[in-house]
Formats: sequence, structure tokens, C-alpha cells
Amino acid sequence: VKGQVIMTSEELFAFTALNSWKLVTGRFEQGFAALTDEQMGNRVAPGKNRILYIVGHLIAVHDRMIPRLGLGERLYPNLDEPFVTNPDGTIPDPISVSDLRNAWFEINGKLTEALEVFTPEDWLRKRSDVTDEDYAKDPSRSRLQLILNCVNHISLHSGQLVLAKSVQLT
Amino acid sequence: VKGQVIMTSEELFAFTALNSWKLVTGRFEQGFAALTDEQMGNRVAPGKNRILYIVGHLIAVHDRMIPRLGLGERLYPNLDEPFVTNPDGTIPDPISVSDLRNAWFEINGKLTEALEVFTPEDWLRKRSDVTDEDYAKDPSRSRLQLILNCVNHISLHSGQLVLAKSVQLT
Repeated sequence: VKGQVIMTSEELFAFTALNSWKLVTGRFEQGFAALTDEQMGNRVAPGKNRILYIVGHLIAVHDRMIPRLGLGERLYPNLDEPFVTNPDGTIPDPISVSDLRNAWFEINGKLTEALEVFTPEDWLRKRSDVTDEDYAKDPSRSRLQLILNCVNHISLHSGQLVLAKSVQLT
Repeated sequence: VKGQVIMTSEELFAFTALNSWKLVTGRFEQGFAALTDEQMGNRVAPGKNRILYIVGHLIAVHDRMIPRLGLGERLYPNLDEPFVTNPDGTIPDPISVSDLRNAWFEINGKLTEALEVFTPEDWLRKRSDVTDEDYAKDPSRSRLQLILNCVNHISLHSGQLVLAKSVQLT
């Protein structure tokens, strides 16, 4: 999209939001991709969440975005219980570390693919978890808002991830 | 801006970005506003940055945005050395905790005020730290990009802030 193609203002807004999503998911990924399965079990700080819990948490939250963005059915609703509803350490891990890595790439690949072909109009459409009435009152309750919130949520957990000894971010 | 006013698509994109900035700065603020000056000296985790270092760090980084957004001169260039260039604990704190709190509100108040009157065109203008040549190659190197990056940076440190025992976020 760079270089020769002239974008409209709306397209530029959408392109910048897309880049923010890519940058932040890419950075988080870089934070855990180099870790061994054993290191994935380390805590970000004493008494705090394990790295793999945070990864599972983001997968579950991003999976929820699939229907909210109108992209179809969820792929991993079973990850809510262990990684969203309950705190770390209360439920046995429902998935191996290697399956967790695969789920990360599956979910985020699906989301990135969809966002890449969103028109500006698609970005500004109502999130499906907002009622018509609420959207009429506040038209910023759009998919764009959902994605910006999600990107901030990833950044929040990236900040925790970098506290773990084993994690190196450039 | 809500409710009766009909916004154009461009205005909606800008409004959503503005709301993201407000939401995220507000949350971070809520994280430290209720702390005593003594608690501001607590570390977010053993051996990690003090809360007040993180607050000073964000102030310095946001202060740098003033010229980058074309809003004039920096107010606190003296906070770079202690809160950006050097790690926590290497330089004596250059400012009292109460002055630090004031600086937070001063800098972010100034930025919010400016962003509130940005037109969509203002958001998409070149960041002043990007050359004309680089902007021509990649027109997403705009003020919008700078602000989305900044909002992610705040979120990153919010994630660390909430690890501190004394911090409560709703």
C-alpha cells in the first residue's frame, strides 16, 4: 500500500490503525516466540501470571473479537474458562504450549487477514456487541474502537511480559 | 460531539483516536492518583522501576511530543536525563513527587486540549520528527501514528503499574 498509491484521508486513517495492530501484535509475538516451552511457564514477576497464561488470555480475548467484528464463529471458546474467567493457577492448562503457540498464529492471522481488506466503511461499522441504539447515540462504538481497545490491551500485557527475565524485546 | 451531531467518516476516525488517548491516559492517571507520595516510591515488581520513575518517564516522553505535534516548545526537557536516558536509580530524583503530579496534568492537559481541536487533516499531517522524503514514501508517518504509538506506550506501562500492590484499577 506504500509508495506510489495515493490514499484518501479515510484510507490513511484505516491504514494507520492497521499498522498499529500489526506493530503491537508483532512485538508481543517477538516477546514469547523465542522462549522455550519451559520458559513459557515462568512468571512475569514473583506471584504474578505465568507467560503462558498471558498468551492464552490474549488468544481468548482475540478469539472473542471474531464474532464482534462480524467475521464468523469463535475458534476457541474453551479458552475463556482457563484464561479469562479464572485467574492463573486455578484450572489445569487445557492446551499444550505448542498448541497455544499455534492458536496464537491462527487467531491473529485470521484477524490480520480480515483487517487488511477492511474498507474505511468496514472499520466504522458497529461492533456486533453494541446495540443499534447505543451506536446511534455514539457512532464511535465501532469495529475501529474495538480494535484500538484490543491493541491497547496487548500493549498492557507486553509491558508485563518484558518484566520476565527470559524475555528480550529489541 | 456525541448524539445529535453528524460526523463525517474522517471525523469519526479522529474522534475515536482522541477517545482512545483520553481513555488510556485517564486509566493510567487513576492508577497513580490515589497513591501517597511514599507509595509512589514503590517498585512495580522486585528489582523493577519505581512507580514515580514510570510517571516521570511518561511525562518526559509526552513532553517530547509537543514539538513533534507542532504545538510549540517542550516544557520539561530536564526530565529526559533522569527518566529516559538513564535507568531508575542512577540519578537523584530531580523533582518532588508533588511537582511530578502537577507536570503530568500540565503536559497531558496541554496535549488533550490540542487534540480536541485537531481537524482530520491535522491528525494526518506529518510528524515533525519525520522528513518530507520519508513522509512522501509513507504518509502514515503522521501525528496520528505518533499518538497511537504514544497511547500504546502508556498502556504498556499501565500493565506494569497494575502489578504494584498499592495500585487498584477498576
